Amino acid sequence: MVSLSTAHDRRHVETLVRQVLRDHLVGHVGREPAGLPQPNSGPNPLLVNVSARHAHVRPEDLQVLFGPGAELTKLRNLYQKGEFASEQTVNLIGPRNRMIPQVRILGPTRDYTQIELAYTDGVFLGIKLPLRISGNHEDTPGCVLVGPHGSLTLKRGVIRAQRHVHMHPDDAAHYVVQDADEMKLRVDGPCGLTFDRVKVRVHQRVKLEVHIDTDESNACDLASTTRMRLIKQVES
Amino acid sequence: MVSLSTAHDRRHVETLVRQVLRDHLVGHVGREPAGLPQPNSGPNPLLVNVSARHAHVRPEDLQVLFGPGAELTKLRNLYQKGEFASEQTVNLIGPRNRMIPQVRILGPTRDYTQIELAYTDGVFLGIKLPLRISGNHEDTPGCVLVGPHGSLTLKRGVIRAQRHVHMHPDDAAHYVVQDADEMKLRVDGPCGLTFDRVKVRVHQRVKLEVHIDTDESNACDLASTTRMRLIKQVES
Repeated sequence: MVSLSTAHDRRHVETLVRQVLRDHLVGHVGREPAGLPQPNSGPNPLLVNVSARHAHVRPEDLQVLFGPGAELTKLRNLYQKGEFASEQTVNLIGPRNRMIPQVRILGPTRDYTQIELAYTDGVFLGIKLPLRISGNHEDTPGCVLVGPHGSLTLKRGVIRAQRHVHMHPDDAAHYVVQDADEMKLRVDGPCGLTFDRVKVRVHQRVKLEVHIDTDESNACDLASTTRMRLIKQVES
Repeated sequence: MVSLSTAHDRRHVETLVRQVLRDHLVGHVGREPAGLPQPNSGPNPLLVNVSARHAHVRPEDLQVLFGPGAELTKLRNLYQKGEFASEQTVNLIGPRNRMIPQVRILGPTRDYTQIELAYTDGVFLGIKLPLRISGNHEDTPGCVLVGPHGSLTLKRGVIRAQRHVHMHPDDAAHYVVQDADEMKLRVDGPCGLTFDRVKVRVHQRVKLEVHIDTDESNACDLASTTRMRLIKQVES
């Protein structure tokens, strides 16, 4: 146990510890820049990770894009057990006839194909992205997907994912929230801000993890963050 | 005077008024998407505008890029009196050998050349952008500028502009803030958030106007905003 005599010493040590954790986690979680686990009064450390643009695919669409019998192969594990960044990527083409190349597919396959983009990507492609929780594709736009074997026109499923926090029931109990509630995420630092409307998603099998997109992480410069807190949202 | 019988009617009319103002202002201020003037207890309406990536140039650099005797010509006025988006654009090239084309120059010319980018642009170019108030170029990176007449290697002056609010002394008196103070900007809506550290810049000749960059406006989806408030920042 190290005794820290001054606030300055404490800050210095905190900075070093964060750096070590950041270096460790960038490799571990496979989303970059990785968020830092924060000192947290709850049962588990708070991790904030950035979801870069990515795709989920159903098996039949995978066959069209990558050929008969194609399967997703693991590039690296994600933070949530069983989830992984695959070696497979697809190209996206939108209404402006511009392409975003090499959008990574996350595995395992799902029972729907879904593209998650930041608004910056939507402006580039010419798609007005609807804000959605994963899997809700009502009134969502599509785009063209191009793989090494073939292409397909996705009718719907292109979204901006609503910022959300995965949590175990133990965490939900600690924060006194329920599935589908919304929380605030306070991010301190040179570009500090507080996100409203961080959707709570409770599940037995998940670890505490906030997902924001690249626009959101760039707005607050997540890499320079000094402290992050998840706060129960009282006001609307 | 229209009497609004229900909350629903009121919301409907507010939506229509905002739409009309937005359509009007997009043309007027030359930054898109334009922020909406907000009901405000202060002496002036609160306008939040998005600074897309842009350049300021000194006259001697303008000659290099556009030829001897070149001057900036006006494309459209900006919100602040005397400032304008020029017809001239430059191409930027960074360390990854990628180019961002057609970055607009804002006029009039200044006594320094400065490139203001969002972090998304910095990632694309391979430049780690420092957060700066306009004109502070200490320890800032440069890049290559390419114009129709010639190119130049800018030694420094590539920044992310710190979010800031221009205000007249009357507004500063109303908010009880001084030049160089920092305020919060609360943005309500589907992607609502509260920006910390909005730097106050007081000047006799300016109108009340907040500037955020495209990452910040995309993070909060400024176009879908229902209400914005400037709040004195009490805590650090």
